Amino acid sequence: MKLHGTMKINHNGHLEIGGCDAVTLARQFGTPLYVLDEACFRHNCRRYYRAFTERHNGLAVYAGKTLLTLAICHIIAQEGLGLDVVSGGELHTAWKARFPMDRVYFHGNNKSEAELRLALELNVGSFMVDNTYELAILSRLAKETDTVAEVILRLTPGVEAHTHEYIQTGQNDSKFGLVIENGQALETLKLALSTENVHLKGLHCHIGSQVFELESYNHTAEVMMAFAAEAYRETGWAPEELNLGGGLGIYYARGDEPQSIEAYADTVITAVHRLAGEYGLPAPLVLVEPGRSISGPAGSTLYTIGAVKEIPGIRKYVAVDGGMGDNPRPALYQAQYEALLANRATEEPGELVSIAGKCCESGDMLIFDIKLPAPQPGDILAVSATGAYNYSMSMNYNRLPRPAMVLVDDGNADIIVARETYDDLLRNDRIPNRLLEQQKVLKLAR
Amino acid sequence: MKLHGTMKINHNGHLEIGGCDAVTLARQFGTPLYVLDEACFRHNCRRYYRAFTERHNGLAVYAGKTLLTLAICHIIAQEGLGLDVVSGGELHTAWKARFPMDRVYFHGNNKSEAELRLALELNVGSFMVDNTYELAILSRLAKETDTVAEVILRLTPGVEAHTHEYIQTGQNDSKFGLVIENGQALETLKLALSTENVHLKGLHCHIGSQVFELESYNHTAEVMMAFAAEAYRETGWAPEELNLGGGLGIYYARGDEPQSIEAYADTVITAVHRLAGEYGLPAPLVLVEPGRSISGPAGSTLYTIGAVKEIPGIRKYVAVDGGMGDNPRPALYQAQYEALLANRATEEPGELVSIAGKCCESGDMLIFDIKLPAPQPGDILAVSATGAYNYSMSMNYNRLPRPAMVLVDDGNADIIVARETYDDLLRNDRIPNRLLEQQKVLKLAR
Repeated sequence: MKLHGTMKINHNGHLEIGGCDAVTLARQFGTPLYVLDEACFRHNCRRYYRAFTERHNGLAVYAGKTLLTLAICHIIAQEGLGLDVVSGGELHTAWKARFPMDRVYFHGNNKSEAELRLALELNVGSFMVDNTYELAILSRLAKETDTVAEVILRLTPGVEAHTHEYIQTGQNDSKFGLVIENGQALETLKLALSTENVHLKGLHCHIGSQVFELESYNHTAEVMMAFAAEAYRETGWAPEELNLGGGLGIYYARGDEPQSIEAYADTVITAVHRLAGEYGLPAPLVLVEPGRSISGPAGSTLYTIGAVKEIPGIRKYVAVDGGMGDNPRPALYQAQYEALLANRATEEPGELVSIAGKCCESGDMLIFDIKLPAPQPGDILAVSATGAYNYSMSMNYNRLPRPAMVLVDDGNADIIVARETYDDLLRNDRIPNRLLEQQKVLKLAR
Repeated sequence: MKLHGTMKINHNGHLEIGGCDAVTLARQFGTPLYVLDEACFRHNCRRYYRAFTERHNGLAVYAGKTLLTLAICHIIAQEGLGLDVVSGGELHTAWKARFPMDRVYFHGNNKSEAELRLALELNVGSFMVDNTYELAILSRLAKETDTVAEVILRLTPGVEAHTHEYIQTGQNDSKFGLVIENGQALETLKLALSTENVHLKGLHCHIGSQVFELESYNHTAEVMMAFAAEAYRETGWAPEELNLGGGLGIYYARGDEPQSIEAYADTVITAVHRLAGEYGLPAPLVLVEPGRSISGPAGSTLYTIGAVKEIPGIRKYVAVDGGMGDNPRPALYQAQYEALLANRATEEPGELVSIAGKCCESGDMLIFDIKLPAPQPGDILAVSATGAYNYSMSMNYNRLPRPAMVLVDDGNADIIVARETYDDLLRNDRIPNRLLEQQKVLKLAR
């Protein structure tokens, strides 16, 4: 397993994260346990801050959908980043954490009127407008409350990034954004310029996730700046902000070859500045929306190993006390992860096993075919790079309580998400009185 | 859309479920909203009760993982079914609902010691033992508490059912159960017979989900009874209970051709009785574990339509106010669903559209290519057959609160799961004091 952030193997032969012995963490807080490496998380934030804000006055806007809690909001605010929210729930979290609202960007392909109203009341910095329906509601609500909404139009550039390549799609078949190629984007831009109580501030796009090829971003900058130039010729309007989305890939497992944050920043800022010069446009501020590349490598999950079952000649199943409930990514995306035994981290990983989750579902397999030192019940398995899209996608399938999360740094471990209890699972359950009365007579029409 | 259970189109041209107008339900309780048709749910329970318990003294054991709340436990208890639980959380739910513990079956490939202890304390009826590790813990705990655990061994019969076929696997590659073919099952059976404080009551297997081919069950009965006969010859032990698992398929969308509960019962009971006669074994009670075929057709989800975006020549995206957060099955399994506009249920479905969820994720598409009467913002979309694996797999991805669930019957609608609030999302968030102090100095070792 690659050691991320502050991970090291300590003198007890145990995995250590943020100066905390992982075996001690498991004992103290129980398992499954999310462990977030504060220094690693902040370090990733600072690299973005330096590359985009210090050098260029741009902004890295943290994608809250990867991992958002009150504590995370505090850290993001302290590190000087912006915050992407994609729902009223994420916005409420930011507000409760007193996150500076001028640095909040509100995304979503189908924001409700209630969410837009809440966002206006809270003075959200920017609305990433996805479609004309939203533009109309936003204008009406802004008018009602006598405010002006700052709007950034989400466009579909017809570039689709895959891990190691990108595709120039003729399709533009996406639920998100306004298509450049067929004229919808320009038409909506003109509409936004003439819409009351909105101020069109910039343009946005997002080409995909877990991207390893910087040329995809360069090409996207070209498409977006060509559109900006066309809009400028047609309307005289030029974007103050150009937001090129997120998607920078991280290392999960062998074969993943991520680019550095610095090289990513160089690529996009250089491309935008060069193109602005070529088109005679004022250079827009460049924004990006990193999520996974900040939170992903900073997170690990600790599990306790239970049943070990060998089917001779076929497979050795090693079951842990969590699984798809706390990490749905293997089931959803066939995502790959690395792991080690935190309590036996110096032992030779000589046995090929597969890690099964505890959900009552065949598809609940965390890792197929990983080499570990022959795992025994009671061993602590650490899975790395689980900071993004694990807690945020976690569920109570099988009524498994969601794990706690501890923030570790310099030997300190503090809970930032408390473990769910069995009673938490029942909190919203209600029993109508009629069910408590005597058995009912069946009433089925057909 | 096929009309399930008590669904009908009322004189207003609206969808009605359990005598309640779906448009009124949406207005009264908000959307997204899970609606559970009590008569349909109970009707399915009763068909199982008649087929297995009245006719044969067997038992249908409801699979709680498909949908379990306090109210559901009450209904299952009233209808005389057993209850499968797969975790301490599900067990806790059953206990809080005062479900009769002698009818509870405790499943799981990796039950923790704490869960087993809780189950023994609560006098759970049967432990579905998956492996020797669990058997050893269970025996020790039962001894400590001076009880005898009723044990049913989970076996891997080497039969894998697919929707329309089954495969006799030579592989037996599963995280669940003990393989018959390689002798592990018989070996563990002998071990169980000689293990203190456990009483071996029966055998169990499960061959898959959403099964449309009854021959799969017939064949499974043959494999299991052949094993029972072998065990009888070797040890003199015969199973009192033979549990053939669940998996009976339901109608989600065109192409699904489910078998009736009655035909299913006939197939398995007849096969087991015939084989018992042939092998000279006492006929075991036949148990099955239906989940989806009880809860699935009884559930619907109501959404409000928001943004409608046409990309000419490509696709019309119709976005709703829920999605993969309340129904992860399309993203997980490419599951198909049917839907209609509940407020315009008599109009001709003349337009081909695709239903997008509101999650900030390209994969959050509920239904591709469905015909509806040209949907407009504010229309109420009803998706059918969402009773199983929707609420139970729901998540707070994007910090979207999970929907409410109402139980409808004979014109009454009662909340059985309250809608989550924004503050519910923050309930377990904690902010360590050190984050509230001034900005920290970065401490990254490497």
